[in-house]
Amino acid sequence: MSTPPSLQALINALKVLPGVGPKSAQRMAFHLVQRDPAGAVQLAQAIIDAQGRLQHCRLCNTFAETDVCEICQDEQRNHSQLCVVEMPTDLWAIEATRAFEGRYFVLMGRLSPLDGVGVNDIALRPLISRALDGEIEEVILATNFTTEGEATAYYLSELLRARGLKVSRIARGLPVGGELEHADPATLAQAVIERRDKP
Amino acid sequence: MSTPPSLQALINALKVLPGVGPKSAQRMAFHLVQRDPAGAVQLAQAIIDAQGRLQHCRLCNTFAETDVCEICQDEQRNHSQLCVVEMPTDLWAIEATRAFEGRYFVLMGRLSPLDGVGVNDIALRPLISRALDGEIEEVILATNFTTEGEATAYYLSELLRARGLKVSRIARGLPVGGELEHADPATLAQAVIERRDKP
Repeated sequence: MSTPPSLQALINALKVLPGVGPKSAQRMAFHLVQRDPAGAVQLAQAIIDAQGRLQHCRLCNTFAETDVCEICQDEQRNHSQLCVVEMPTDLWAIEATRAFEGRYFVLMGRLSPLDGVGVNDIALRPLISRALDGEIEEVILATNFTTEGEATAYYLSELLRARGLKVSRIARGLPVGGELEHADPATLAQAVIERRDKP
Repeated sequence: MSTPPSLQALINALKVLPGVGPKSAQRMAFHLVQRDPAGAVQLAQAIIDAQGRLQHCRLCNTFAETDVCEICQDEQRNHSQLCVVEMPTDLWAIEATRAFEGRYFVLMGRLSPLDGVGVNDIALRPLISRALDGEIEEVILATNFTTEGEATAYYLSELLRARGLKVSRIARGLPVGGELEHADPATLAQAVIERRDKP
């Protein structure tokens, strides 16, 4: 007795999803076939649609359905600041704050030698040419404060400073409303080291 | 700034999968679009194939690509024993032990009033007609030893005994190689209560 081939194929195909092992893939396959045929059809269609429609914005490299994304098309935005993030989600998170008026560049990853992600696997070359468009004055590095994000920020700042650009890094410190007692020691240490003059 | 519609549609479609929330759905969508376009196409195709090919075995209700599954087609198997399980995975698990020679019936679920799964949502009627085919003498209940599985077994045993069938339940107790010291109290208690004469 074996699993029907088309069911096994579906289970195998689901295993390409990040974080999905054999057991979850099986559970997902059963769910799609047994409980939610309509959702399954929708999922298949959504994959095909996304594949067909999504591209990377020619300027900022984020996902877009057009050659140039909405933000890059917006002439109202500050042309002199470029905020570099790892993923589109980071861009959306910063946009949601309404604290940044400039443009973005999305690396679509981070340097992570241990995972085999080197300087040729993220969008470094497009970033360099974007940053050197003549309008950009300041590049704000907004990669994550993880080991990989920090390494990426370090590498980029060396690269961009060597080309005469002003490079800054988003601030690290206690969260708004944060209490010293509950801050982790590394964050608290950084908040002390990177203290600013009280205005 | 908003997520491109086709990307948002893909994220929403992925949320139908069990155990996938908004964050995982986003991560999965990015992975499919960005890192594994080939895997994405395969997944869409596998869903469509499985939808088109899979059906339920007319006799035992498991997933099959044919009207009657391999096991039910096998004339060598014992016609007098019917093992009732919740899901096809349970059937496969028992098959892997090679300890059972009879036929199966797959409920495709369990009674679970709290989740809205009542007697009309699992394959009770087909089970009754299958069990009363005239050849079946013993029905072995192999639902899980969870609250829902136990309730389902209780309900089925009442139902089937009333129709004159012999009904048994797979044994509960310590695992093979299990040590009393490490068994959970409920399992150990059941192992004492359900003790058998030493042969």
